[in-house]
Amino acid sequence: MIKERSLIEHIQQAAAAAPNRAVKKGIGDDCAVLQLKPSFDLLVTTDLCLEDVHFRRAWHPATVVGHRCLVRGLSDIAAMGGEPMACFLSLGLPSGLPQRWVDSFLQGLCDLARRFKVQLAGGDISSAKEIKADIVVVGQVPAGKALVRSGARPGDRIYVTGELGGSGAILKRLYQGDKVQPAKSSRHFYPVPRTEAGRWLRQQGLASAMIDLSDGLSVDLGHLCEESHVSATVYADHVPMAEGADLALALHGGEDYELLFASPAKEKLPQRVAGVQVTEIGVVRKRSDYSSAIQILGKNGKERSLAPLGWEHFRKQG
Amino acid sequence: MIKERSLIEHIQQAAAAAPNRAVKKGIGDDCAVLQLKPSFDLLVTTDLCLEDVHFRRAWHPATVVGHRCLVRGLSDIAAMGGEPMACFLSLGLPSGLPQRWVDSFLQGLCDLARRFKVQLAGGDISSAKEIKADIVVVGQVPAGKALVRSGARPGDRIYVTGELGGSGAILKRLYQGDKVQPAKSSRHFYPVPRTEAGRWLRQQGLASAMIDLSDGLSVDLGHLCEESHVSATVYADHVPMAEGADLALALHGGEDYELLFASPAKEKLPQRVAGVQVTEIGVVRKRSDYSSAIQILGKNGKERSLAPLGWEHFRKQG
Repeated sequence: MIKERSLIEHIQQAAAAAPNRAVKKGIGDDCAVLQLKPSFDLLVTTDLCLEDVHFRRAWHPATVVGHRCLVRGLSDIAAMGGEPMACFLSLGLPSGLPQRWVDSFLQGLCDLARRFKVQLAGGDISSAKEIKADIVVVGQVPAGKALVRSGARPGDRIYVTGELGGSGAILKRLYQGDKVQPAKSSRHFYPVPRTEAGRWLRQQGLASAMIDLSDGLSVDLGHLCEESHVSATVYADHVPMAEGADLALALHGGEDYELLFASPAKEKLPQRVAGVQVTEIGVVRKRSDYSSAIQILGKNGKERSLAPLGWEHFRKQG
Repeated sequence: MIKERSLIEHIQQAAAAAPNRAVKKGIGDDCAVLQLKPSFDLLVTTDLCLEDVHFRRAWHPATVVGHRCLVRGLSDIAAMGGEPMACFLSLGLPSGLPQRWVDSFLQGLCDLARRFKVQLAGGDISSAKEIKADIVVVGQVPAGKALVRSGARPGDRIYVTGELGGSGAILKRLYQGDKVQPAKSSRHFYPVPRTEAGRWLRQQGLASAMIDLSDGLSVDLGHLCEESHVSATVYADHVPMAEGADLALALHGGEDYELLFASPAKEKLPQRVAGVQVTEIGVVRKRSDYSSAIQILGKNGKERSLAPLGWEHFRKQG
């Protein structure tokens, strides 16, 4: 059983453990008060994490749920090239949930918050029929410099950080009934947001458009193309595949939290950015009149349309 | 049945209808991008609205739920003397919920958003077992000028805007099984945040501490005293009672969304602020060593302790 008093105390302790100097007033007033750097824009992102939709208690230990909950927001800030400052957590909890589950959830969330100097600066708690956590992350970026989805131009090269399909490969095994130990190094259980890589790309002015890979390459590249009014061709044999993943998982498996970005052809990208591998996987094309579909160029030299399946598809296959 | 495509379109239409120029990038990217005025601090507040905890479908039409959902956040911004800029909505919806319910909910929320020029700038949608809405409101206030809870000093006078207990009186009738029509003028169904009054008090430098009355006077005055390390005495016959309310409802009924503030004794407060009545209801006292309890001075000249019952108490009595 959850004791609200002790829950609030735990949350306050967690908040104190990861201070960020942008936060002038955290938990304990009507609003949190934050001070942005002069000439910086504010970034805000919000993500729902619901039991049996975004996680399963049988598959994901509470620390993993807390970690993954915050990663979603941090990854969105990274995808704008921003610096995260603070997070806000709204928790709905079933009254019969063990206090230990909540403590571990907070532990997972706050360990990651501490690593990225993100202060837990507020939120709300309520009883609910199922576990629900809504995480808000606020960050900042030099004014006018946020890396949006809409800046890709025909001829730009398309890049990804890291390797793809690793999270989906684990999810597929979980759906198949495998017991999978939640290793700290696993990008399914403990993905790490590409905050430094995103910031570096923004500082160097190398990316014309950027998005994070949460729904899967085929879906997220579609979003980037849609917002930029362009299309794209992906080279199948360039897509970096994670251990255990095949091409389908690398193209459609979600929750890798890598960065996908476009860069003008004249720019030379290093092979690694902030310690993370960067791979050229395709090219931005004009949108043709008859089709806006993204093409994938196979090893056999043939192009076919890349349907935006995303991880929802895999879930239904599971 | 809810069609996700049409839901997102409705949300985007709603967002477009209430633009705020602070929002440089709204729905459609990884994060929203906002530009604060130079030398302004950021305010952030987040509130959960859950079915059967914060509203009942049998009592509260969907437009009322949407309106009340946003009011909670706007009232928090008002209580800091801030200007609201944008809101973010995370919605969990049961798959069997009629589309009409969602449309009316958005209508209620967006009508209020438009009135206060608050742009719906992002959010998240998911299926869920029960209706849950998490609302985040961001606002701004001149740097260092946010009206916090912690500034009340012994000798300060205590004031409230408007009349108290009106929302609780309706809630009591609902618990008793009365059918109550949701009149647009009702502060239970359509409370209005005291944004202008809060801003005026901040600009004039008249309030030493401020909080909004969401949980009830006895609870919220307790929060203000706690944060200010003081105590207080309330004069029973000064408390302005709303139509249908008695003293108990005015002291403990919540969700009036009026402002409660302290002001140094030397300041002269007008009887109305931004069109709203202002009433002196008590005085801030030193915290004594033997008791931090707030006292209430009755008409009979006798003092007694004011227990922080709040509206939870009434709910349990219902």
